[in-house]
Amino acid sequence: MAQQNDLFKKLVAHCKEYGFIYQSSEIYDGLSAVYDYGPYGVELKNNLKDYWWKSMVQMHDNIVGLDSAIFMHPKTWKASGHVDAFNDPLIDNKDSKRRFRADVLIEEHMEKIEGKIDKEITKARKRFGDDFDEAMYRETNPRVSGYVKELSEIEARLGAAMSNSDLADLKQMIEDLDITDPDTGSRNWTEVRQFNLMFSTQLGNIAGAEGKLYLRPETAQGIFVNFLNVQKTTRQKLPFGIAQIGKAFRNEIVARQFIFRMREFEQMEMQYFIKPGEQMKWYEYWKETRLKWHLALGTPKEMLRFHDHGENLAHYADAAADIQFNFPFGFKELEGIHSRTDFDLGAHQELSGKKLQFFDPETKESYVPYVLETSIGCDRMFLATMSQALQEETVTGANGKESTREVLKLHPALSPIKCAILPLKRNDERLVNMARDIFNNLRLSFNVQYDDTGSIGKLYRRQDAIGTPFCVTVDFEALDDQTVTLRDRDTLEQERVHVDQLEEIIRKRVDMKQLLVQ
Amino acid sequence: MAQQNDLFKKLVAHCKEYGFIYQSSEIYDGLSAVYDYGPYGVELKNNLKDYWWKSMVQMHDNIVGLDSAIFMHPKTWKASGHVDAFNDPLIDNKDSKRRFRADVLIEEHMEKIEGKIDKEITKARKRFGDDFDEAMYRETNPRVSGYVKELSEIEARLGAAMSNSDLADLKQMIEDLDITDPDTGSRNWTEVRQFNLMFSTQLGNIAGAEGKLYLRPETAQGIFVNFLNVQKTTRQKLPFGIAQIGKAFRNEIVARQFIFRMREFEQMEMQYFIKPGEQMKWYEYWKETRLKWHLALGTPKEMLRFHDHGENLAHYADAAADIQFNFPFGFKELEGIHSRTDFDLGAHQELSGKKLQFFDPETKESYVPYVLETSIGCDRMFLATMSQALQEETVTGANGKESTREVLKLHPALSPIKCAILPLKRNDERLVNMARDIFNNLRLSFNVQYDDTGSIGKLYRRQDAIGTPFCVTVDFEALDDQTVTLRDRDTLEQERVHVDQLEEIIRKRVDMKQLLVQ
Repeated sequence: MAQQNDLFKKLVAHCKEYGFIYQSSEIYDGLSAVYDYGPYGVELKNNLKDYWWKSMVQMHDNIVGLDSAIFMHPKTWKASGHVDAFNDPLIDNKDSKRRFRADVLIEEHMEKIEGKIDKEITKARKRFGDDFDEAMYRETNPRVSGYVKELSEIEARLGAAMSNSDLADLKQMIEDLDITDPDTGSRNWTEVRQFNLMFSTQLGNIAGAEGKLYLRPETAQGIFVNFLNVQKTTRQKLPFGIAQIGKAFRNEIVARQFIFRMREFEQMEMQYFIKPGEQMKWYEYWKETRLKWHLALGTPKEMLRFHDHGENLAHYADAAADIQFNFPFGFKELEGIHSRTDFDLGAHQELSGKKLQFFDPETKESYVPYVLETSIGCDRMFLATMSQALQEETVTGANGKESTREVLKLHPALSPIKCAILPLKRNDERLVNMARDIFNNLRLSFNVQYDDTGSIGKLYRRQDAIGTPFCVTVDFEALDDQTVTLRDRDTLEQERVHVDQLEEIIRKRVDMKQLLVQ
Repeated sequence: MAQQNDLFKKLVAHCKEYGFIYQSSEIYDGLSAVYDYGPYGVELKNNLKDYWWKSMVQMHDNIVGLDSAIFMHPKTWKASGHVDAFNDPLIDNKDSKRRFRADVLIEEHMEKIEGKIDKEITKARKRFGDDFDEAMYRETNPRVSGYVKELSEIEARLGAAMSNSDLADLKQMIEDLDITDPDTGSRNWTEVRQFNLMFSTQLGNIAGAEGKLYLRPETAQGIFVNFLNVQKTTRQKLPFGIAQIGKAFRNEIVARQFIFRMREFEQMEMQYFIKPGEQMKWYEYWKETRLKWHLALGTPKEMLRFHDHGENLAHYADAAADIQFNFPFGFKELEGIHSRTDFDLGAHQELSGKKLQFFDPETKESYVPYVLETSIGCDRMFLATMSQALQEETVTGANGKESTREVLKLHPALSPIKCAILPLKRNDERLVNMARDIFNNLRLSFNVQYDDTGSIGKLYRRQDAIGTPFCVTVDFEALDDQTVTLRDRDTLEQERVHVDQLEEIIRKRVDMKQLLVQ
């Protein structure tokens, strides 16, 4: 865990130092839980979006794109249930004036108990050695079994209070468990109240409540309200899908873990409209298809797992699973695959009074389609990608000395810069001219970089740190035979290549094509 | 003008019918001045963004990208002047309860007077024929010269009232000019008051005024506050630029002309950081460079013009010009090129107390750089592109009959779909297999479409209407010799091409490369 924490800190620092992610408004001491993507970050994020978009829209006959606005008619959020039910239970400490999520306070209390259990188990394992039977110990050791029992009681009570929105019992739990303000130790709590997670604003040309607008908390509803427009103008039959990438906003009280949970974030969502009754078939299809998408990037299988929601389903779903990724802080949701039934289209149909149905030419029936959704956080995908790409390696130099290099082993199709062109000497006109020619030719096809600001060794290290798969070094030999050194980021191998072949060699390795699975 | 109005209506209808643009939340009767991009719209918009991004970032050694968040620290907007000065003068009609911009009411009154002048001029031209000297007539005809004098007086008074924020005089002008509510004729006006155009919202974890957030009204400030982060982490020297594409929001009271002026819109902005004193050189450079960018798309020169701001400069600028495009409703701003001096960086430095300076290694001095900005509305660029691409043509069919076709003559690099693959018969297994093979091969490289839902003639028309540069028809001859018919959208020429050559032929014509000017 300590090691994982170190890795996470290193990752955050790397993101800042190499221009991937900055804290928002840093010169004003930052805006919490909001981040900006720097020069290399925006390129990596765009490549991830491009990979998702091409996989969805270009590779599926029956999936088309959409870019609906962040602002939507407020009735949208009434129909979707967000106005009434998209709440967190909130509690203020009257002394510290700080605001907390009541359920998170209780969860943190549970983590403390888990910590105590871990400590006892570790001690016992040391004492008993190979013979230690943890499951048995949890049941029979009086202290540990007491903790375990306490934990399961709290968990059950919290679950019940949350699903019944029993705010009074949440408050009572905080009192019963003697939970204090984490910073000040104060027990002076307000009542627990519901807090809606949608950001709201006001239209200027309409006074009062009617002008109230929300920033969308999910992109999905923009797809649902456009269902008929898209179906008709692109002449789709069921099944068909609509894919969208866009910003969403949630007024999180507790936002943390870097870009994992932000107040402003980007989603890549696809809603697949299907015949009612076929949802389990498509649920399995999309679980498999989406897992393949992740694996195609070279992500090791053991870094990903499915987490089935089982009985804990959202109000709109009849089946749901997450694809979890092993982040530096543990396995957490990266993507969700949800069978949303006809909940959303049905609700919009009812509230708008407009039919949102598909006329099936085969059965001659009209019905509200069911929906199978895949929803991935773009920023989470960015974090997952960076966290597995960043590696520290020991390398042996030409002089036999060992040194450490930080290298971002991104899939070349995702790398911000595809190739760096480095003249061996910055002041030799012939080298510079040749290097500039290569640069000017390659830049028409890829995002490449010309760099002469240091020794070749230093420049290699810098390109490693931003994940550039290729470096081209132009040396004096190049002037004679038009060959240059092409260095591979991962193997560190260097081969001499004719300049005329560069574009094709690089293209093959960085082309998004190789990721697109049919 | 009537013809232009017709063209505009046709364009709006085309955008809806063919899945380019829908009104937002249409099932709830729409959200005014907000639009959604449909399946072909989002592809075209993405291609425009890609062209801009590659032209800026990929083709310039010293320009890098950024993607800063919509939410920023509220002090940002204090420093930029938006909190205090980003206002419109608003007036309500007490009877109709409608809200208007006071200056727009006066401008509309001026348009009426202009209409009267035009009418007189038209009459006189008819009367005098070739001998008619309009300039002379404007001066000497008592009625016309009276209107002209009245107009220039109103213009001067409005200009003064606006630049002095003299709200009382705006109200007085409305009374003096006897301006009434356009719908009801009521003269029952409130006072004029300032209305800030920024949408605001409230952070959940901070109570009161401190938690007030704005939706950014421009993307530029996200670049300014990150100036040092970007400069250091990408090791830039002056001059260098930061390019960004992103959403911005303005709480417009009067929003109109389709996607020309929306409350939620997308900007493509580049801030070029330069040495103070060099701004006029870069101003000229970027005016020329940006014009070339538009012309590279094949836009006729006469559709674009520069509009110099002259003395009417924004508070932050020492020189500014628009690139205007001849929209269906006349020449209007498409892009702005602004010499912003050190206004923004200076203001942020002062308010944040943090140095935003560049240390010049040559002169050994530190200073706040000047900024040259290019700022283009992505949605306006979309509208400009669509309005010049949409054409009606008379074509002669194989049978000698004339018919009309609607064709979107988009530059192939911008087209949503690059090629449609059409089997001559939808039920012939051999044709279908061959067409599917071609489709599956091409889709790895481009966004292509397989369509068998009608006669070839109808399918051609549909592809014309969405701007697809190529159609491939797979007929029985193809089964024998592996050649297919490749039809060109613009010339309507059809040539037989071997299937192995298709990818290369299409690539050459649709590659963004051909637009990238060095």
